[in-house]
Amino acid sequence: MRFGVVGVGAMGSLHAEYLAKRVPNAALVAIADVDIAAAHTVAGRLEVEHAYQTATELIAAASVDAIVVASPRRTHAGAIIEAAEVGKHTFSEKPLANTIEEIDSATAAVEKAGVALQVGFHRRFDASFRHVRDSIARGEIGEPRIVHSVSRDPVWGTSSRLPEDLLLETTIHDFDMVRWMSGSEIVEVHAVGIPATEPGRLEGVIVSLRLKNGSVATIDNHVASAYGYDQRVEVFGTQAVASVANIPSHQASVTGAEGDLHAPPLHFFAERYEDAYIAELVAFTKCVIDGTTPAIGASEARAAQVVAFAALESLRTGATVRV
Amino acid sequence: MRFGVVGVGAMGSLHAEYLAKRVPNAALVAIADVDIAAAHTVAGRLEVEHAYQTATELIAAASVDAIVVASPRRTHAGAIIEAAEVGKHTFSEKPLANTIEEIDSATAAVEKAGVALQVGFHRRFDASFRHVRDSIARGEIGEPRIVHSVSRDPVWGTSSRLPEDLLLETTIHDFDMVRWMSGSEIVEVHAVGIPATEPGRLEGVIVSLRLKNGSVATIDNHVASAYGYDQRVEVFGTQAVASVANIPSHQASVTGAEGDLHAPPLHFFAERYEDAYIAELVAFTKCVIDGTTPAIGASEARAAQVVAFAALESLRTGATVRV
Amino acid sequence: MRFGVVGVGAMGSLHAEYLAKRVPNAALVAIADVDIAAAHTVAGRLEVEHAYQTATELIAAASVDAIVVASPRRTHAGAIIEAAEVGKHTFSEKPLANTIEEIDSATAAVEKAGVALQVGFHRRFDASFRHVRDSIARGEIGEPRIVHSVSRDPVWGTSSRLPEDLLLETTIHDFDMVRWMSGSEIVEVHAVGIPATEPGRLEGVIVSLRLKNGSVATIDNHVASAYGYDQRVEVFGTQAVASVANIPSHQASVTGAEGDLHAPPLHFFAERYEDAYIAELVAFTKCVIDGTTPAIGASEARAAQVVAFAALESLRTGATVRV
Amino acid sequence: MRFGVVGVGAMGSLHAEYLAKRVPNAALVAIADVDIAAAHTVAGRLEVEHAYQTATELIAAASVDAIVVASPRRTHAGAIIEAAEVGKHTFSEKPLANTIEEIDSATAAVEKAGVALQVGFHRRFDASFRHVRDSIARGEIGEPRIVHSVSRDPVWGTSSRLPEDLLLETTIHDFDMVRWMSGSEIVEVHAVGIPATEPGRLEGVIVSLRLKNGSVATIDNHVASAYGYDQRVEVFGTQAVASVANIPSHQASVTGAEGDLHAPPLHFFAERYEDAYIAELVAFTKCVIDGTTPAIGASEARAAQVVAFAALESLRTGATVRV
Repeated sequence: MRFGVVGVGAMGSLHAEYLAKRVPNAALVAIADVDIAAAHTVAGRLEVEHAYQTATELIAAASVDAIVVASPRRTHAGAIIEAAEVGKHTFSEKPLANTIEEIDSATAAVEKAGVALQVGFHRRFDASFRHVRDSIARGEIGEPRIVHSVSRDPVWGTSSRLPEDLLLETTIHDFDMVRWMSGSEIVEVHAVGIPATEPGRLEGVIVSLRLKNGSVATIDNHVASAYGYDQRVEVFGTQAVASVANIPSHQASVTGAEGDLHAPPLHFFAERYEDAYIAELVAFTKCVIDGTTPAIGASEARAAQVVAFAALESLRTGATVRV
Repeated sequence: MRFGVVGVGAMGSLHAEYLAKRVPNAALVAIADVDIAAAHTVAGRLEVEHAYQTATELIAAASVDAIVVASPRRTHAGAIIEAAEVGKHTFSEKPLANTIEEIDSATAAVEKAGVALQVGFHRRFDASFRHVRDSIARGEIGEPRIVHSVSRDPVWGTSSRLPEDLLLETTIHDFDMVRWMSGSEIVEVHAVGIPATEPGRLEGVIVSLRLKNGSVATIDNHVASAYGYDQRVEVFGTQAVASVANIPSHQASVTGAEGDLHAPPLHFFAERYEDAYIAELVAFTKCVIDGTTPAIGASEARAAQVVAFAALESLRTGATVRV
Repeated sequence: MRFGVVGVGAMGSLHAEYLAKRVPNAALVAIADVDIAAAHTVAGRLEVEHAYQTATELIAAASVDAIVVASPRRTHAGAIIEAAEVGKHTFSEKPLANTIEEIDSATAAVEKAGVALQVGFHRRFDASFRHVRDSIARGEIGEPRIVHSVSRDPVWGTSSRLPEDLLLETTIHDFDMVRWMSGSEIVEVHAVGIPATEPGRLEGVIVSLRLKNGSVATIDNHVASAYGYDQRVEVFGTQAVASVANIPSHQASVTGAEGDLHAPPLHFFAERYEDAYIAELVAFTKCVIDGTTPAIGASEARAAQVVAFAALESLRTGATVRV
Repeated sequence: MRFGVVGVGAMGSLHAEYLAKRVPNAALVAIADVDIAAAHTVAGRLEVEHAYQTATELIAAASVDAIVVASPRRTHAGAIIEAAEVGKHTFSEKPLANTIEEIDSATAAVEKAGVALQVGFHRRFDASFRHVRDSIARGEIGEPRIVHSVSRDPVWGTSSRLPEDLLLETTIHDFDMVRWMSGSEIVEVHAVGIPATEPGRLEGVIVSLRLKNGSVATIDNHVASAYGYDQRVEVFGTQAVASVANIPSHQASVTGAEGDLHAPPLHFFAERYEDAYIAELVAFTKCVIDGTTPAIGASEARAAQVVAFAALESLRTGATVRV
């Protein structure tokens, strides 16, 4: 299966490298980036034949069977639709689009064309998160009652975000985790922002959620963790509690009179989720080859994004918002 | 210093035992309980001379210098006032009273009499919670931004609570932890209940809080933890995160093909907080002997209880409530 | 049951306090110490009626039913024999005597008198060590193959020991652990000392052992651990490995860019083994009251001590010594 | 730099894959294996042009600049010498040869030809082991006094080994760890085998060591760990203790009434040391390109192997053997 990657920023570059080297049955044949120099650099490094400036050119290329879209979120839906119209499959980074309407248009195009669409909810492919989910599915914790999801980024660029960037780019993963872990739908959202110094921007957010099955959940996001990437989940059930802890950056420790010093967590997403990023591309490749529908498609992306918009409204109004 | 203990239920019996055997400069001289047989049993076991049916009798006894009140919460304020009126000191279990008005009356009586009053926020005397608080005070985590407090009881009697019982008996500790850890005041409360099977009762609650200094917090309480007592706090700051983990019931583990099995947490409060219960009585005894004012008195109790009432209102209305 | 404590150094003072306050059905009625002032001090603090300068006086006292011997090891056997001759029971600190001959004499006296004798192998009463032992007994690790026992003291007085002091006072616990955990007898010993600066003295020792059932073991002792008391065991079996980890002095941690700092272990024996010291006295008291034979008596003490002497010989000769 | 891999068993296949995909500036151009079908399979899978049946053919190939030798240990020295004679560099799996004489011949050939030789002591490239070593080098633990090294394989093929296979293939890594961690030379060896059911074979071994600087060490090896690959080291120093723990196979845990279940360690070497295997090849490639001498060459391999032979003698005789 021959892939083209659209957008070679931090995430797109990783997808490109994995497709070139680590995903069986996948080949990377084209790169596109508005910054054509960046496209050429990545193409050169990975020995990829074609570099384009636009998604349109890449999608049109005869050698491309499927695309990975990692350009800014406003461009996702358009690329999905363009690809679908020429019968090509798309793996899209989250969020699937800027609006629910765009998600619906992209979904319609994909369904009409009968092509595959998968969204980059990579935590579902992480061994630890998956282990917790599987434990819950096997009934090991009884019925879920409380879910906590924590996602804190290390300092990376600016230490604040616009509310919509925070909710649509980061918190959307936590909404997906809450839905997946609880096996239920979010029906009520209440969000409290942690204001940044710059007016109108946030350092972080906490969200509390009520679910259809009577469970509750909280989410904790922050964009400037001094100790690295913090990615945890905890699901408290009637029979047990299941948790995902951070992965320390190594397993050495030194214990002296002052205490027992262990490593901080792996620093950021490239280290923490390498296996999950590869696994999601492997799964997508397999779906396309086998002609099956990706498990994590437009409906999952839509459900999380609807909640993100409700949380944005809660941030604006201070009220609890029904989804 | 000669103590009388009022109320010898689960908590009062522990206080009695610690006063009799483990608190330097303290002697236990009287027990009172409406169940006079229970009072006699504890008195006999601990070789205590006097057993009464009422707090009034105990407070009046010449041999008693100070009382520990561990009877139902509606009786706390009355006992504090009666004791103050005869110049005796009180260590009262939380909450200090059933209403803010009662707290204010008790406070006035205590101030007028110049006696000591301490409230049973024992977590402030726990080595782990105190270590986190001290780390924060030394600036080790930078400025606090997010506090999480978890208190889950093992199954104990019924697996549900009336909202006011849950908020005033259990969550009040978490409100105190959030205030203490953040060094700030809670200004806004939003609570979501986990409904129990019986109408009008709760299994648990999550609360989200906004603090005066811009920090936020969540609280997670549940009354039926299958794995024992879960008592944690986490304070995320601009430079580090500080946490209290549970104490495992032992340090043995067995690692086989299925995994690495460690002990569950200490089962409940008597095991988990033995040292803290003794430490708070030691501190109170020292305050009275030295003539100093207990650090954790009526104002701390009042501040937490005001938040508890706001949370109860949020539970009723679904709205965010300003404190 | 009325106890007299002989020797109120570090360990004897603890036994005295526990007997006075924490052991049901036990009363502390007499103290003896060659330093009569020390005897009086402890007696005064614990409200004990009688203080003597010699074990002989204490043993003769009509009010004493049983003794706890915590004086220097050369005095143990004599006190046991004197007590036995007047029908009194003994709980003796380890080692039971200075020589195997003395152990045999004490054993004979005890058997002839029909009194109880228990030796202070307190780790057998520790919840974590016991949990590992019970797991092994239940077959959870399959057949034991390798045992590791670690005992490192914090710096305490001098940072070196005479070989016989190290082996008879400290390593003897590890020999007992190896026997207890493996369920087998030690048949071969090889010891390597870590020389201290002072000639003829050791900082520590490692011992390797071959057991009757084909298992092997190592012991690691050191007398100057900078980070506190280190007390661990690991038993590797054909189906699993069981381990005892140290108990951290609290459960707080702080995670920053430099790492995740946890508490060092509990500092020394008084903190680490408080529960075990009480449990061994509770068990001894129960044996005497019930008229049963203590599980950890002279034969266990003898078996460990025989190995200690073999290890001393190995230290001297460099050879492997058969037991 | 164009590599040929000699021997594509478990380890050689990994080296081949890493050279083909994960080592910058490295290309894999040839495979040799006595099982020519295996050579063709790996060559096909990794798109490698040449497959040979003998090391001789591969070494002679013009396209090959350097070789990785992962064939049986008796063939290592010959391949190193053949490569050196035609000016080619060798990365050799451990042990470097079957005898010290062979090591010396290979060393002479390499020195005469001025080519690079690196031995596969991959643990030196593992982040955790390296972190401990670096901590020691920075003086963080004071002076090392005791080193423990544990290497237990999961059940893999037969559950026993010939003593020389165990000592030369597995324990040799631990001898290297002890030397590297302590910064000292081993001067005395005492080994005790754990006999397997089959006569003359071992399930495992423990070794105790005395070092030149007065430190001591133990090694624990077993070939049938039920819970997976166990790879640890602990270095006790005068100021602190530094340790490497196992890497759990994931970070999820489930805590119920029975306890807190975490993942077992990563199952075996391919998972545990992937990063280290890549890092050692990266380092070797860089050395050759830069014209520098690999840090872990013949002298390190020789020093560990001399100790392995001493340990074999100790196993045979029961005596302590001076190195």
